[in-house]
Amino acid sequence: MKKESTLTQSEKEYFMREALKEAQKAEAIAEVPIGAVVVLEGQIIGRGHNLREKQQEATAHAEMFAIQQACQAIESWRLEQAQLFVTLEPCPMCSGAMMLARVEEVYFGAYDPKGGAAGSLLNLLEDERFNHWSYVEGGILEEACGQVLKDFFRALRQKKKQKKSGNL
Amino acid sequence: MKKESTLTQSEKEYFMREALKEAQKAEAIAEVPIGAVVVLEGQIIGRGHNLREKQQEATAHAEMFAIQQACQAIESWRLEQAQLFVTLEPCPMCSGAMMLARVEEVYFGAYDPKGGAAGSLLNLLEDERFNHWSYVEGGILEEACGQVLKDFFRALRQKKKQKKSGNL
Repeated sequence: MKKESTLTQSEKEYFMREALKEAQKAEAIAEVPIGAVVVLEGQIIGRGHNLREKQQEATAHAEMFAIQQACQAIESWRLEQAQLFVTLEPCPMCSGAMMLARVEEVYFGAYDPKGGAAGSLLNLLEDERFNHWSYVEGGILEEACGQVLKDFFRALRQKKKQKKSGNL
Repeated sequence: MKKESTLTQSEKEYFMREALKEAQKAEAIAEVPIGAVVVLEGQIIGRGHNLREKQQEATAHAEMFAIQQACQAIESWRLEQAQLFVTLEPCPMCSGAMMLARVEEVYFGAYDPKGGAAGSLLNLLEDERFNHWSYVEGGILEEACGQVLKDFFRALRQKKKQKKSGNL
């Protein structure tokens, strides 16, 4: 059974801008800029940004922190009725975490054709063989969400180039 | 390219028994008994057991704790050359975490036909479209790993039954 969105377009964009603010926090500390928020009844109850390099921790993705904070906020592992917003299409780990937490609606910004598990490489969140599935919508503020990533990787390449020519 | 195991059968069973010890720690606090260990160069560098109910945290799976502890132990998010042992076939979240951490070899005990993402419902760990894949082997001490789960759920059903008849 296909699920339906319970939000208006302007609500979706409002919360995605909040996820983008989280992505900017990652960028400010030289992490790949990806951010996420979890929303319940119109309130943000979890926030997170990518911290993989800083924590040297493979599981330190934006969505994981947002889910963990949300579970703590409501003192329950069940995030039924919650919406999750993330600036980049979630990977298999994060999509799996959303399934386990029973997140009702998932919205992402940019598509990840090389690793996305919410429609690109596979679609875990709408796989009805599992005991929970979600409403999924990609492309919310897609250009803005993609641009922060493009800018980050362009700057990273320039730094590497400068370092290389400095070493010659 | 199919990967190969670097361990003998007795090594596999030795480390699975260590994962079973973790499962027993979960059982002792009324959590679904699932345990995991991460091994590097013959040493256990990460241990974990299921803590979902105690922590009220959807992501609190045995494998996540074992991976996080292993990353902390070697101060790196890259668990290349590492082996992970878990008593039950991993779910999509945990399989995804193993991919992100670049775990080289994954061994599990019992199969999970309803939610397993290492061969049963899907096979994330050997999907060559992702930038990392692993050697995967299921059925290590399968009977013992399955039995702790069966015993746990049987006891749980009996408790519920007693509670119900007590309420009549």
